[in-house]
Amino acid sequence: MEQQYNRLGAAEIAAGIASGSFTAEAVMRDFLERIAQREPEIGAFAHLAADEALEGARAADRQGRGGPLHGVPFVIKDIIDTVDFPTGWGSPIYEGFRPPRNASCVELLQRAGAVPLGKTVTTEFAYFHPGKTANPHNIAHTPGGSSSGSAAAVADFMTPLAFGSQTAASVIRPSAFCGILGYKATLGQFDLQGVMGLAPSLDTLGLMARTVDDLVLARSVLCGSSPETAADFDETPPRVALMRGPHWQEGSMEMRDVCQRALAKLHAAGAQTGELAHPEVFEELTECHKTVIAFETAHARLYEFRQHRSRVSAHFAELMETGLAIPRTDYDQARRTGRHAARMLDTLYTDIDVILAPAAKGEAPAGLDATGDPLYSRAWTLLQNPCLSIPFGTGPGGLPLSVQIVGRHGDDGRLLAAGKWIHARLAAK
Amino acid sequence: MEQQYNRLGAAEIAAGIASGSFTAEAVMRDFLERIAQREPEIGAFAHLAADEALEGARAADRQGRGGPLHGVPFVIKDIIDTVDFPTGWGSPIYEGFRPPRNASCVELLQRAGAVPLGKTVTTEFAYFHPGKTANPHNIAHTPGGSSSGSAAAVADFMTPLAFGSQTAASVIRPSAFCGILGYKATLGQFDLQGVMGLAPSLDTLGLMARTVDDLVLARSVLCGSSPETAADFDETPPRVALMRGPHWQEGSMEMRDVCQRALAKLHAAGAQTGELAHPEVFEELTECHKTVIAFETAHARLYEFRQHRSRVSAHFAELMETGLAIPRTDYDQARRTGRHAARMLDTLYTDIDVILAPAAKGEAPAGLDATGDPLYSRAWTLLQNPCLSIPFGTGPGGLPLSVQIVGRHGDDGRLLAAGKWIHARLAAK
Repeated sequence: MEQQYNRLGAAEIAAGIASGSFTAEAVMRDFLERIAQREPEIGAFAHLAADEALEGARAADRQGRGGPLHGVPFVIKDIIDTVDFPTGWGSPIYEGFRPPRNASCVELLQRAGAVPLGKTVTTEFAYFHPGKTANPHNIAHTPGGSSSGSAAAVADFMTPLAFGSQTAASVIRPSAFCGILGYKATLGQFDLQGVMGLAPSLDTLGLMARTVDDLVLARSVLCGSSPETAADFDETPPRVALMRGPHWQEGSMEMRDVCQRALAKLHAAGAQTGELAHPEVFEELTECHKTVIAFETAHARLYEFRQHRSRVSAHFAELMETGLAIPRTDYDQARRTGRHAARMLDTLYTDIDVILAPAAKGEAPAGLDATGDPLYSRAWTLLQNPCLSIPFGTGPGGLPLSVQIVGRHGDDGRLLAAGKWIHARLAAK
Repeated sequence: MEQQYNRLGAAEIAAGIASGSFTAEAVMRDFLERIAQREPEIGAFAHLAADEALEGARAADRQGRGGPLHGVPFVIKDIIDTVDFPTGWGSPIYEGFRPPRNASCVELLQRAGAVPLGKTVTTEFAYFHPGKTANPHNIAHTPGGSSSGSAAAVADFMTPLAFGSQTAASVIRPSAFCGILGYKATLGQFDLQGVMGLAPSLDTLGLMARTVDDLVLARSVLCGSSPETAADFDETPPRVALMRGPHWQEGSMEMRDVCQRALAKLHAAGAQTGELAHPEVFEELTECHKTVIAFETAHARLYEFRQHRSRVSAHFAELMETGLAIPRTDYDQARRTGRHAARMLDTLYTDIDVILAPAAKGEAPAGLDATGDPLYSRAWTLLQNPCLSIPFGTGPGGLPLSVQIVGRHGDDGRLLAAGKWIHARLAAK
């Protein structure tokens, strides 16, 4: 039987429940039915909480009116603490561990009325070693990582909204591979209490959805009361500059093609477009990111590495060994280079609203034993800027392609407002 | 019986064990004897692990040579996760909770050979509601907070080294009240995985000890390999500028006196000294700090406030209510003001090495029902600069007085090097 409600977005669901058009229970039943049909193939969930979700939806109906996400289902990447469900960090070390509290982001969404469907698959410690999840567009292909289950669940209409996180490319890449909208916040924008840390100067919370309105709504809940009034591009279209960056030639032909076609289409739709050369220091940023993530991870996950070495993957052990061998002075230098580049980048935003850039090398690669290359996100993550992955067409294998837009540091509202305009134009025939 | 070793510092203990002058077990026995004598009056420990500490010292002796802190005892503020001991956050909600892992800072110290004596008393959630600890100099007076037990244990020769943390004044104030050296790091200097977060843009790890050498040693361990070469002031004494700041008149007469006498004494010892006017924007910083701590805490501890309201103190509930009512735009503005002031402050360090400033309003106040006013640390914590509390003389009540020095953002090595020079001069007759 075809479901009615599971193709709706979070904002539409909240509005429909609030207006009495349908119940939270009816919505939840459709998502659970979809999950029951698809989960055996997709493997998006580390822990599915079907009974609790249904009970939560019924409670929302009994309660009547509530917060801005009243009755809206969501899923939680399994590096985020939940008191009601186990939190395993994608590692056998923590399999079945039940935290004594909820992460702030979970508590904020629940306070707004949202109802969790469960925990989604993450790679081990949100790094490279993959979980069981397949790409809903072709189950022989990776969904990307590390927010694998969240991206697949949103793409496959199992949930309207998901939490992810990004330390290298863990929101943008899986969103791009699964053909959904993935928003990585400016570093420090949202509270990270209860979210496993990998590299604190890079770790950022992410949101995944199928409409920009849903990202805006969830962001306002996470920001607490009254976020800044977002820019509005209905009157004046956004100014968009393509930045090819130092790794332009390392991606696929279709990646380069999709970026250029996106720019042309936005220009035709009225956007002010152009190209922007990358500052020379950007050529160092990918290496700086590698230094920072390895050094910081070596401290953040030292306990697991020292006390549970045999249960850590070879790939993660390699990152730890690398990180522990990096001299502090090299790490400090990499951080300084990042801060210097961030200041240079900031000056570029006087004439533009967002930068357009590759989101991934191309389509999701075949195979579930790796999650793809984080190349096109390392620099932006180091710079701590907000990013949004936007799907645009498909590649030669029939899998989604995407671009990403990069906003000014701290100006996440403008990024999403521009993203809404751009997403609508790119989705138009 | 008088103990032999518990007046030694961490560096002296490590050197003595390494050279075979004494055993780790003999050292540990002396600290445990001291604790047995004094703990009933002082109440520094939330969890004393005497048996495990003695066993750890014996294991260090059996093992022979080890890391730079081989066999050195230390204590851990009870908002820091430990897999071997309960971690209660100073709250009945978490009484007896055993985390599944060690915080990075604990793991790093243990990797260097240090042996934990246990967990020290913190105020509730490292905010204002006090624990049981008394000031070792006069048990009718507060030791300050929130790192109350750590400061008292170091001051009372129960440990050579302690972890604290600071979000308002939680390292500097208790160190000042207890007459020890307290070092609050630049924000982001050390990994905070497993350290309870209160307000992430303010939270910083702290170290407490009785010699600056011990702080330097412990810092190098926490930094990982090869921290920057610290400045050396043996040849050229440091340049020290007194900044009275906008709240100068709100402290005690003896506080103002001790700052001015310290400056004069350093001048007489050869330091280049002067006075520095505070930039005008500094007049806003205390209020900005109050906005930021309330807003961020309201998100960080939302779970406890919503799900365990009846077990949260009235004082903490008030902070939560305040924080939840602050508009996001006010919070964002407070952060912007802080960043602007930090940039202005940074330019002042071209001509000076450290700023000299009040550490607390005066002596530790009488009574154990409050921990004193964080007034003189709020701005520096907001600015994210490194600070060091240095004892200097006593007040009219016979309790310690202190000054603090504030280093350039990120230049913690220089702060401690200057601190070593200054501490030696202020301690000289």
